[in-house]
Amino acid sequence: MITENNVGIVETKFYTIEDKIKFDSGVEFGPITVAYETYGKLNEDGSNAILVIHALTGDAHAAGYHSENDRKPGWWDTIIGPNKAFDTNKYFVICSNILGGCSGTTGPSSINPETGKPYGLSFPVFTIEDTVKVKKKLLDYLGIKKLYAVAGGSMGGMQAMQFVISYPDYVTSAILIATTSRLSPQAIAFNAVGRNSIISDPNWNNGDYYDKQEKPDRGLSTARMVGHITYLCEEAMYNKFGRRLQDKDHYDFNFDVDFQVESYLQHQGQIFVDRFDANSYLYITKAVDYFDPANKYGSLQNAFKDTDAKFLIMSFDTDWLFPSSQSKEVVNTLMQLGKDVSYCEIKSPCGHDAFLLEYEVQEKIIKSFLNTHIKGEENE
Amino acid sequence: MITENNVGIVETKFYTIEDKIKFDSGVEFGPITVAYETYGKLNEDGSNAILVIHALTGDAHAAGYHSENDRKPGWWDTIIGPNKAFDTNKYFVICSNILGGCSGTTGPSSINPETGKPYGLSFPVFTIEDTVKVKKKLLDYLGIKKLYAVAGGSMGGMQAMQFVISYPDYVTSAILIATTSRLSPQAIAFNAVGRNSIISDPNWNNGDYYDKQEKPDRGLSTARMVGHITYLCEEAMYNKFGRRLQDKDHYDFNFDVDFQVESYLQHQGQIFVDRFDANSYLYITKAVDYFDPANKYGSLQNAFKDTDAKFLIMSFDTDWLFPSSQSKEVVNTLMQLGKDVSYCEIKSPCGHDAFLLEYEVQEKIIKSFLNTHIKGEENE
Repeated sequence: MITENNVGIVETKFYTIEDKIKFDSGVEFGPITVAYETYGKLNEDGSNAILVIHALTGDAHAAGYHSENDRKPGWWDTIIGPNKAFDTNKYFVICSNILGGCSGTTGPSSINPETGKPYGLSFPVFTIEDTVKVKKKLLDYLGIKKLYAVAGGSMGGMQAMQFVISYPDYVTSAILIATTSRLSPQAIAFNAVGRNSIISDPNWNNGDYYDKQEKPDRGLSTARMVGHITYLCEEAMYNKFGRRLQDKDHYDFNFDVDFQVESYLQHQGQIFVDRFDANSYLYITKAVDYFDPANKYGSLQNAFKDTDAKFLIMSFDTDWLFPSSQSKEVVNTLMQLGKDVSYCEIKSPCGHDAFLLEYEVQEKIIKSFLNTHIKGEENE
Repeated sequence: MITENNVGIVETKFYTIEDKIKFDSGVEFGPITVAYETYGKLNEDGSNAILVIHALTGDAHAAGYHSENDRKPGWWDTIIGPNKAFDTNKYFVICSNILGGCSGTTGPSSINPETGKPYGLSFPVFTIEDTVKVKKKLLDYLGIKKLYAVAGGSMGGMQAMQFVISYPDYVTSAILIATTSRLSPQAIAFNAVGRNSIISDPNWNNGDYYDKQEKPDRGLSTARMVGHITYLCEEAMYNKFGRRLQDKDHYDFNFDVDFQVESYLQHQGQIFVDRFDANSYLYITKAVDYFDPANKYGSLQNAFKDTDAKFLIMSFDTDWLFPSSQSKEVVNTLMQLGKDVSYCEIKSPCGHDAFLLEYEVQEKIIKSFLNTHIKGEENE
């Protein structure tokens, strides 16, 4: 509902980077169209911009509504808006869909201008660093001289981290939420199962399914189910579902859904295929698996050594996908480097999902960080 | 290798229960052929028998070798044999393949004598209690008056638990390893994803694939991959694989296997389809999901109230599939009932897999339990 507490009606805009970008793999790729939204106004010296970065399956629509009748606001509307943590009265907030995505930015489902057909698997495999190169081009185009903040949760946090690493002088502050500097082997394993499920779906057809009637929906749906198990912790599962049955009081003795948790996962799988592309899922999870700045730059210290950004890092005690220990590793590295880093482990029963659900506490912490810690020091 | 430390060459035998058995669902089903093996000799009064029960995908071949050239002994050969914990010089050890399985006992892949075709989905959905009814018929046939012990890990532990509940006067001792009296919603969720993966495979064909060239191997393989993630803990994943690459020193930038953990899971998935039936996987995981004696008998206390069996319960500190807290719930229930219960939480870096890997410590504990605690008291 559009009120004075949100940014109102917004629209997704598009910017095309005509020049080719050199990817980590060595491939030069372009043109790339970037879908993005902005909220608030850029100030004259281009210094009040905040880049917010979505998680695995998010999009550019981070705040406000797309129409009068739109019932669902952008994915971070709780945090972005007038007088909210990312205060659109003060800041110019930008969010863009990730490279390789399927919500407006060029990805495997986009038409390759050279062939007139979707890229499919001819789309180059990219890294988190590549996604950040694309975002930087957008910011340059928008006239942003230096980011006041870059912020993201989960995979968005990885990109925020990489942004600081890639452009150490370009960022005043970085807000990294429920994220990690590298996936655990267990998290890689879950992604591998998801990809395996898609690739095993005969309708995937080696990535060439865009003109087919049948899409690899079953594989993608199973991948999403696996994902959702990792987003909830055991405590959240008990709280949400326990061993309660779905719309019945005794077992069915067949292979239909018996338990509420099964119903939840099937539903999540089914609705996901309507909004996401199976190839995008492959590419983006691969980029996430590859992310490992400690390995790439020799050490995590080396990766972060050149930045003067101030960091706010938040993790959630029940997040077992990107556990607090992984955030603490980043915090410890930054402290060893003498960087300015604030860390908060938030108690929550919500597991990894907490980064989107526990917005009230995050809002307060981010507000305080931006308005007091960063702003205060800037005024010194 | 056949030595004096193992039971030597053994063979799988078959017993057919001709009478129909009434299942929990109300369905009466039969005949049921049971594949089983025995090691050691039954004593004259039929009182030295130990029933060992396999886990999710195990079979009747628990010890020894099937031929001179057989390289792989039975699944619990480390514990069963001359002078081992289940000492075949003293005890008569029995192991049978589970109802609904695919290693000799009647299951969905067996021929329905009424139609001459495999049962497929016409096989009735059964419960852990039903699997135990079948085992009891086998024991009666073998002339066993009372079990000296019933023992199992994981799903085998559930069946051992149910055996005590179903036949409280028939069991002298029960050894429950890495098991639970009911799955957590998270564990149900993993099973649901596995089943969903099988059912989503077009080759599953509503369970009717036995005469087809293409089997639902891809769905079953993905289900197995999911399973294996839950059998290893994060620590085990770090120890076994870390983020090491498989046979390469840089990323491939394609969708082949990059990481060792991916390679491991794919391999586990691929070899599994050669030895297991997709429908059996559906039926057995459903029985596991349904297992919940606290719910069935009103409370866990009520379920266990009639038995005088002595219990040995072991769990592993890194097992997150069936965590120690679930074993402790059973222990506490038994203690509240004044039952004789020994409990040990074993430290291990192996996660749920520890119940098969950490055999040395288990061997010592079981030996002591059987030879001193049970035998000692019997001699009093």
